[in-house]
Amino acid sequence: MRKESRWIRWIKWIVIVTVLFVLGFCIGWFAKPSNTQNHTDSSHYLKDFLEEMKADKIREHLRKFTQLPHLAGTEQNLKYAEQIMKEWQMFGIDSVEMVPYDVLLSYPNESQPNYISIVDHLGNEVFNTSLAEPVPQGYEDISNIVPPYSAFSAKGQPEGDLVYVNYGRTEDFSQLQREMGINVTGKIVIVRYGKIFRGNKVKNAVLAGAKGIIMFSDPADYWADGIQPYPDGWNLPGRGVQRGNVLNLNGAGDPLTPGYPAKEYTYRFSPEDGVGLPKIPVHPIGFHDAFRLLNNMGGEIPPNNWKGALNVSYRIGPGFTDEFKSQKVRMNIHTNNQVTRIYNVIGKIRGAQEPDRYVILGGHRDAWVFGGIDPMSGAAVVHETVRSAGRLLSTGWRPRRTIIFASWDAEEFGLLGSTEWAEDNARLLQERAVAYINADSAIEGMYTLRVDCTPSLHTLVYDITKQIPSPEEGEEGVSLYKSWHKRDNWTNDRDAPRISKLGSGSDFEAYFIRLGIASGRARYTKNTKTERYSSYPVYHSVYETFEIVEKFYDPSFKRLQAVAQVRGALIFLLADSQLLPLDVNEYADSLRKYAQSIAQLAQKNLVEMETYKVSFDSLFSAVENFTVAARDFHERLQTLNKADPLQLRIMNDQLMYLERAFIDPLGLPGRPFYRHVIFAPSSHNKYAGESFPGIYDALFDIQNSADPAKAWEEVKRQISIAAFTVHAAAMTLTPPA
Amino acid sequence: MRKESRWIRWIKWIVIVTVLFVLGFCIGWFAKPSNTQNHTDSSHYLKDFLEEMKADKIREHLRKFTQLPHLAGTEQNLKYAEQIMKEWQMFGIDSVEMVPYDVLLSYPNESQPNYISIVDHLGNEVFNTSLAEPVPQGYEDISNIVPPYSAFSAKGQPEGDLVYVNYGRTEDFSQLQREMGINVTGKIVIVRYGKIFRGNKVKNAVLAGAKGIIMFSDPADYWADGIQPYPDGWNLPGRGVQRGNVLNLNGAGDPLTPGYPAKEYTYRFSPEDGVGLPKIPVHPIGFHDAFRLLNNMGGEIPPNNWKGALNVSYRIGPGFTDEFKSQKVRMNIHTNNQVTRIYNVIGKIRGAQEPDRYVILGGHRDAWVFGGIDPMSGAAVVHETVRSAGRLLSTGWRPRRTIIFASWDAEEFGLLGSTEWAEDNARLLQERAVAYINADSAIEGMYTLRVDCTPSLHTLVYDITKQIPSPEEGEEGVSLYKSWHKRDNWTNDRDAPRISKLGSGSDFEAYFIRLGIASGRARYTKNTKTERYSSYPVYHSVYETFEIVEKFYDPSFKRLQAVAQVRGALIFLLADSQLLPLDVNEYADSLRKYAQSIAQLAQKNLVEMETYKVSFDSLFSAVENFTVAARDFHERLQTLNKADPLQLRIMNDQLMYLERAFIDPLGLPGRPFYRHVIFAPSSHNKYAGESFPGIYDALFDIQNSADPAKAWEEVKRQISIAAFTVHAAAMTLTPPA
Repeated sequence: MRKESRWIRWIKWIVIVTVLFVLGFCIGWFAKPSNTQNHTDSSHYLKDFLEEMKADKIREHLRKFTQLPHLAGTEQNLKYAEQIMKEWQMFGIDSVEMVPYDVLLSYPNESQPNYISIVDHLGNEVFNTSLAEPVPQGYEDISNIVPPYSAFSAKGQPEGDLVYVNYGRTEDFSQLQREMGINVTGKIVIVRYGKIFRGNKVKNAVLAGAKGIIMFSDPADYWADGIQPYPDGWNLPGRGVQRGNVLNLNGAGDPLTPGYPAKEYTYRFSPEDGVGLPKIPVHPIGFHDAFRLLNNMGGEIPPNNWKGALNVSYRIGPGFTDEFKSQKVRMNIHTNNQVTRIYNVIGKIRGAQEPDRYVILGGHRDAWVFGGIDPMSGAAVVHETVRSAGRLLSTGWRPRRTIIFASWDAEEFGLLGSTEWAEDNARLLQERAVAYINADSAIEGMYTLRVDCTPSLHTLVYDITKQIPSPEEGEEGVSLYKSWHKRDNWTNDRDAPRISKLGSGSDFEAYFIRLGIASGRARYTKNTKTERYSSYPVYHSVYETFEIVEKFYDPSFKRLQAVAQVRGALIFLLADSQLLPLDVNEYADSLRKYAQSIAQLAQKNLVEMETYKVSFDSLFSAVENFTVAARDFHERLQTLNKADPLQLRIMNDQLMYLERAFIDPLGLPGRPFYRHVIFAPSSHNKYAGESFPGIYDALFDIQNSADPAKAWEEVKRQISIAAFTVHAAAMTLTPPA
Repeated sequence: MRKESRWIRWIKWIVIVTVLFVLGFCIGWFAKPSNTQNHTDSSHYLKDFLEEMKADKIREHLRKFTQLPHLAGTEQNLKYAEQIMKEWQMFGIDSVEMVPYDVLLSYPNESQPNYISIVDHLGNEVFNTSLAEPVPQGYEDISNIVPPYSAFSAKGQPEGDLVYVNYGRTEDFSQLQREMGINVTGKIVIVRYGKIFRGNKVKNAVLAGAKGIIMFSDPADYWADGIQPYPDGWNLPGRGVQRGNVLNLNGAGDPLTPGYPAKEYTYRFSPEDGVGLPKIPVHPIGFHDAFRLLNNMGGEIPPNNWKGALNVSYRIGPGFTDEFKSQKVRMNIHTNNQVTRIYNVIGKIRGAQEPDRYVILGGHRDAWVFGGIDPMSGAAVVHETVRSAGRLLSTGWRPRRTIIFASWDAEEFGLLGSTEWAEDNARLLQERAVAYINADSAIEGMYTLRVDCTPSLHTLVYDITKQIPSPEEGEEGVSLYKSWHKRDNWTNDRDAPRISKLGSGSDFEAYFIRLGIASGRARYTKNTKTERYSSYPVYHSVYETFEIVEKFYDPSFKRLQAVAQVRGALIFLLADSQLLPLDVNEYADSLRKYAQSIAQLAQKNLVEMETYKVSFDSLFSAVENFTVAARDFHERLQTLNKADPLQLRIMNDQLMYLERAFIDPLGLPGRPFYRHVIFAPSSHNKYAGESFPGIYDALFDIQNSADPAKAWEEVKRQISIAAFTVHAAAMTLTPPA
């Protein structure tokens, strides 16, 4: 044994002591469990999640759920609900339940068909419209195909002269009465489908005093050039008819229980007091029948923009030409309203860290007939999303927040299933919902992506689409973003793919416009620059089959896959990102554009604006204030200590509640369930989303007001409400104390 | 050097290594900062906070802020606001700001005094009521004492016969019309103050068709036995008059800007469209003048419960006895409404861990004259609370949540300052407010504590009062709880001090009834079993001075100190407890009692309930559901890992949002700003808080309805809404996913 010097021994000792201490310290440090959820780099999970969504699977789901008609309230739609529930359970998500409501639906009377006749002076029916659409090949033995009808039409057999009123818009009726001098009181009006929601046409007809209204699909609006009618192409056959409800609910949900879920114990108004039910008979026809009704009409020839593509003169009436003067039109409508049980299917994946934060993917299941496009192309996509999420769960993944999947019922009868569930869960949703992604029809054209969403989702949509491949042939290796950008550039505003405002007409309505939950929707669409028809030609007809998708819209099912990936990535990142992927600066930018645009609209009346001292200054100043608050908030986000769970939650709460801040609890004038001050449909067309809808409607009303001073007062009031709301929203972005 | 055995050396080494490792481990473990906020045992801070509140200081504050009249909208009230702001800043809280609004106020015309005359057949005034109250000693040189008036009275000089209608309640007018057969159309009614809010009397008079209304303080209602009138005692002198507003706002705030804060850019309705403004002249008088008006009245002698304590017959009229038949009464009212700037003072202490959670202590500053009791006894208490909180801050304490102190303006004109601020901050409050504690008059009697609060605060109030000493002489060492319990036991329901429901009539209204923030108020009160007078005799008269408090109500200022400690401890524990001290089980118990009580009220009409199939089953079942949810929630609280900041926050959010869950966004029928389904004033008396007010009002209306079938339908509808709301609230207590 060698002798060591004292020095070396000491050094050895010190080294040993130090090493041991440091070792102990490090083990202690790292052994201690941390309360902070580390930001799991979830990108590989996202990749797995998106790649698991398969075109073939979507094809299978679509095939499975379009075999039989499944109108809301029918046994078959309950069966599909049960099947979906069972399959979602098998897919392995945490819970699935069936949630029923008893709502007012409307069906044709099975023993007394609805139709329209031309009757002669003796009252004999000289022409009757068809009772049904010719059933497409392969479906001949299917029963329970509901004939074309206008759901919630009043019953009755009004008889009288026809008046043609173009699209039945407010401006069409106004032109008819003021410029053409025609009063429709006691007449039956006939209007073409398109441009606006059919319920608005009916409301206009009622307001004008008509005693019945007929709606038809004109080839000018439902026929694509160079395309064969179904089954040889995807155009609407002459005997195809667009079904649809004709309510004016303005977001009320079940007409008999506005504001409350339609449960067993819920008080129901009597049908006379129901919300939005038309007081006159309404009926839809195809262009084959429309030709017969229009062909002999008399009266003046209208301006060209009133003329469709049928080989008739589009004379406005009233009534037929001299030759047929004694003939009248009689509507025979026996449709019944009845309280009926409907079923939502609700599936959940519990959030790991924030179970009390909800991200919702919801779309409807009920269809007018087979629902090949509307809604099952969307429902198949949701189904595949649930399957993929279940797979990911089984690999150990669990999202930070709770994800809710919904298969809504009775959307076609006024968004009833989604609205009743929103009413039932309003308190939870108001406090806890981060975002709602809608999943109606996933395809309505073969051109490119279409996204409508709240401005705070813009950035996320762009980020996501950059990670998803284009489904178009010949675009291998090209991102969906690039493919979309190329086809639909947002030229006016920015060099990026166009994203539009949300309107209404689908199940996001209660979530976005009533509750103020950040919402969006995505689907594949047509080329709106060249394809002028409304929605898609076979919309709500019996020809919406699996085959129309498989043969024409998406033979490879890659477009539906791409839509599934967009919707899926949205809910994935909203549910699993540590910091919510909502962009407040985008909201500020949009508000500025909207303020400029509504002020510009008002400028059309410069003289009156001077007279009545109308100014948009307060609104611009509020938007400026919001812009500063958003920028400051965004800057604070950069220095946020994400390791502190409370600080993170506080900032996320500010992000989540920003959309809520635009809700005015008093609602828009006369529309208590439309409460979003920035986005709502105008009162004149449910489909179109307007920005600053309160101001928009007030400006619209000026055209028809007998008392302009009063009408301008309302404009001023609405500007003040908008300015206040934007200020209030800005306040929610400032440091909380 | 001794030789050591190998074994011993090895053991030494192992010991050293182990010790060093453990040492390192421990240092590592404890050196690592923890993200969890440990539950600071804040009880010693609470003790310091309460002990710092001094009776003498409260005396000083009260003295200082009652020197001069400080009616809302006047310069002096702005001066006091500035002084409060300055002193709160000096006290050391984080921020203090002045927040102005421009609201509709109402003042007498300075050049045309308001009064009431008896006029002879020539139109000569043979008697005029006093133009002012005799000013108390020591205040003779004070200017700007506003003469007694009814704020927001219509202008006018109606002349006619008087009709006496007791307290002017719905039932009094009903009895007058139905049983006594008197129609008041075109008459001037005279009613005594008391029982209900004066605005409800005015509304009833308008509905009955009266063209003016006079209100007087009858000694039966404003005179305590054996007490001298002020200044020798605290009774109301014969020439003392109760001022007050006569609006029917139902929570709207500023009459011209309902739903929105009255800012510079805010749209204002024209006065004709203002909310709640009476259409007829209104004026208040004392019993000295009332005697002269009532003395010669003719007509029938009313039942005894219509008779007050004046030496007159209380004949109901119309008009005077035969002898004086030709004499009429003329009201001369020239009061003006005008938009006027008011000022709230808002002070804040930023929360350390949850700055985005707000606990609010608010009370008004504006007074009819000096405000010796109303409101400065309360404002002095707030002032002392802020001072004590500032002291505590300087010792290093900082509450977990943000505390907001408010000195409201224009409460006397319809809760305007507090309501406008609630409107301005509605989004923030809805998402972030934990509780609102009101601080109006801190004393209205010399007997014991009075607390009105939401059920979830019951337990906290009991806990707190056990830690505060009784202020009563001879009760040294006795807790406030014990002293209070002895004097006011809640015998019917439980052996504990009585706690009542919140009604309205003070600044908590917008926070509790509109926004659904857990609220409470505490003050010292009279013995309601033996003292029958309304509020306190000198209420809203010039005799509400500093001296009346110092000489009679609280010479030692210990009662005010006790009230300060109750209010202070409430905000302290709500702001600083790790887990929110809200008791959901107490809410369940209260709901059960309320359901039983409203069902019992309905049982008075058993036959009709059968006829119209009215059942309370759905409500009882909802309450049962809520009870189970509350119990389960409470159990889960016991196992909560408080060290996990997210889990704690999630449970606290459920506690905070429970009160919010009782809000119906649609509001109560015809009262859009009263939205709390469990608590609101009845439509017939703003002061009294009713449980299930929707059902209560519907049942009330049955008595006067011409269409009982329809009236019972409304009862059923309200039961359904109540049942749904209780179910919905229960849902918020279940696990969030």
